[in-house]
Amino acid sequence: MIDIAIMGHGVVGSGVAEIIYNHSKRVSEKAKEDIRIKYILDLRDFEGLPYSDKFTKDFNKIVNDPDVKIVVEVMGGCTFAYDYVKACLLAGKSVCTSNKELVAAKGAELLDIALEKNVNFLFEASVGGGTPVLRPMAQCLTANEITEVTGILNGTTNFILTKMIEDNMSFEDALKLAQDLGYAEKDPTADIEGHDACRKICILASLGFGKHVYPEQVKTEGITNVSLDDVEYANGFGCVIKLVGRTRKLDNGKITANVYPALVSKDHMLSGVSDVFNAIMVRGDEVGDVMFYGRGAGKFPTASAVVGDVIDCAKHLASRKYLHWNEGEADYVASSDNDIARFYVRLKTNDSNKTVKEIESKFSNTSYIVNADKDEVAMLTENDIEITLKNQIGSLDSCEVIKTFHVID
Amino acid sequence: MIDIAIMGHGVVGSGVAEIIYNHSKRVSEKAKEDIRIKYILDLRDFEGLPYSDKFTKDFNKIVNDPDVKIVVEVMGGCTFAYDYVKACLLAGKSVCTSNKELVAAKGAELLDIALEKNVNFLFEASVGGGTPVLRPMAQCLTANEITEVTGILNGTTNFILTKMIEDNMSFEDALKLAQDLGYAEKDPTADIEGHDACRKICILASLGFGKHVYPEQVKTEGITNVSLDDVEYANGFGCVIKLVGRTRKLDNGKITANVYPALVSKDHMLSGVSDVFNAIMVRGDEVGDVMFYGRGAGKFPTASAVVGDVIDCAKHLASRKYLHWNEGEADYVASSDNDIARFYVRLKTNDSNKTVKEIESKFSNTSYIVNADKDEVAMLTENDIEITLKNQIGSLDSCEVIKTFHVID
Repeated sequence: MIDIAIMGHGVVGSGVAEIIYNHSKRVSEKAKEDIRIKYILDLRDFEGLPYSDKFTKDFNKIVNDPDVKIVVEVMGGCTFAYDYVKACLLAGKSVCTSNKELVAAKGAELLDIALEKNVNFLFEASVGGGTPVLRPMAQCLTANEITEVTGILNGTTNFILTKMIEDNMSFEDALKLAQDLGYAEKDPTADIEGHDACRKICILASLGFGKHVYPEQVKTEGITNVSLDDVEYANGFGCVIKLVGRTRKLDNGKITANVYPALVSKDHMLSGVSDVFNAIMVRGDEVGDVMFYGRGAGKFPTASAVVGDVIDCAKHLASRKYLHWNEGEADYVASSDNDIARFYVRLKTNDSNKTVKEIESKFSNTSYIVNADKDEVAMLTENDIEITLKNQIGSLDSCEVIKTFHVID
Repeated sequence: MIDIAIMGHGVVGSGVAEIIYNHSKRVSEKAKEDIRIKYILDLRDFEGLPYSDKFTKDFNKIVNDPDVKIVVEVMGGCTFAYDYVKACLLAGKSVCTSNKELVAAKGAELLDIALEKNVNFLFEASVGGGTPVLRPMAQCLTANEITEVTGILNGTTNFILTKMIEDNMSFEDALKLAQDLGYAEKDPTADIEGHDACRKICILASLGFGKHVYPEQVKTEGITNVSLDDVEYANGFGCVIKLVGRTRKLDNGKITANVYPALVSKDHMLSGVSDVFNAIMVRGDEVGDVMFYGRGAGKFPTASAVVGDVIDCAKHLASRKYLHWNEGEADYVASSDNDIARFYVRLKTNDSNKTVKEIESKFSNTSYIVNADKDEVAMLTENDIEITLKNQIGSLDSCEVIKTFHVID
């Protein structure tokens, strides 16, 4: 019998409790031990549940109870969650969390404490919801040097973009629909401005490359600048627009890490990832590209990943698991200026013939779409050094650059 | 320092040796121990390699050497490989293999021996090549009840079908090209008749549902009956033809397991899996659908998965890992007659108007394509009980049924 505590009884927390209660036989069989919820920490009261007697408002009960071996943190945020998780690890308890904000900000520190205390700190649910990605990266791909991770990491923005692409819905209407369906928060900032995707690419980069990447090191651009016109131009170029997080290892030991809207070629597997689904493409030097795809959020998908971690902890109470990375460094994340890139550029022009001529003279192998109705030209560059392309784009003088997005093909 | 032996120095075996030699620092860091190749078993001589001194033709050297803790089996086949793997496990050595034929035929027995001897028997590379799928299923999705696995499991046939779909190449020409490129064997039977995919769906079903499924229990149909006409009809229905392995849990505790060519809707993620890539879609009751995608074969992708297993074994020499399933049963795999299905049916007719009328009278919600040039009608049924649909199809009397494929949407 292993006693656990769940801190937080929101969407994911209630899902964790329900899975453990409703499927106790399955969970115990997999863990080879009975798993019992001893406490659920929440400031609110929840009456009439089969486990209403487990609720407590007192964190000290949990941290001071030597019977509690595993603590689930599903409160979210980085203040109380950080203090409580740290205290639990220091008290020799393993912790499982779905809290990407916490892991992205404090992962290295908490993993160090876990290592020191010989307990586990697991967070499979923090990236991709129920989609397995962190454990396979750390375990199955371990013979590889990871060189790149590119993912559609946020279900809310992917839903909005899918509605724009497939139903020609405006950004505002699609956001409203996402809110009505419960996919987007009342304050959607963290999703649409890319902060959520940023946290996830931090976790993926930290795990993939072994050194902590902090959210403030990641240049992050959301989708508020994506319009239906861009969606249409993208379609003309055989692409769809997706919000991607991307991190790459450079030859000099540094990495790049970015979140931005990008035109993804319809030939690329990531282009087929629609609605609230997520997908993470991992490149290894031996294996090439592998992709993990599934629901990026939702009560039971996410909760099932947390319970998977709990089961793993239960089976490894005596022996540490594999997850670890080192503290980050101030200059570890480099600008992507010297990386290879390809751009979509949207140009306003009074003289499209002249602009087309200028494009053809300054770029090789571009494709472009002339939109006479709007006095616009949209173009795709070829692949080149990012700063070279940016300089070329900056040198265009027959037109005004309206926007520039990366292209992934 | 952990001594290992590699049995077999073919494509995958040489890849394993090269990764361990060329990336010894990486492998040792991940394993937290130096991994040293002590023996390579092969009947042939390999001179001029940096590890030519490791070769032996004598299996007894390996099995009788107490220093060898981990044995890699990459010989293939089910005769010597079975004897040697069994002997190694019985001798208390952990075994890692990429040999799907062996695991599909003898998995339960070998896992039992591993359990008894408290060693590991790992075979991540046996399904999906370098693509992580077995470990994530067993570990990350452990809080789920798996209800279905559907996958594109064979790279060779997927390459052939891709050439037929994208380049309008005949089956024969595409097979020839696959052979020229080294994707298909001189004798391509195991691939094109579906035997290879069959072994993989056996392994996935065994792991997913906990009871061994043997190849002879799986109704297996290859791609030799797929023609360019079918590819064209499929396109008309918004589908592509893929060779899929599919296994589903039934309410009565039995399962279905099949390998067949199927029309896959272009809206389905599996439809985008082209060339030699594989993808495995796993459905869990909590998480919904997750998909694992990557190169299904190839020297280094497959070898990297084997080395990943070696590293995992090295970290778990003292403690057993998680993989296990029980022996199978004769009547465990049921016909899919009572499962839900949807069919593509290709009909020869002298009177297409009459046939269309008959279709409309006997089926609801069909779509069909009339091909006057060929005196053919192609149709898609709706989803219904498989045997009901088969009876309806069998009752058509204005035409002759040329072929019937499943539809996945």
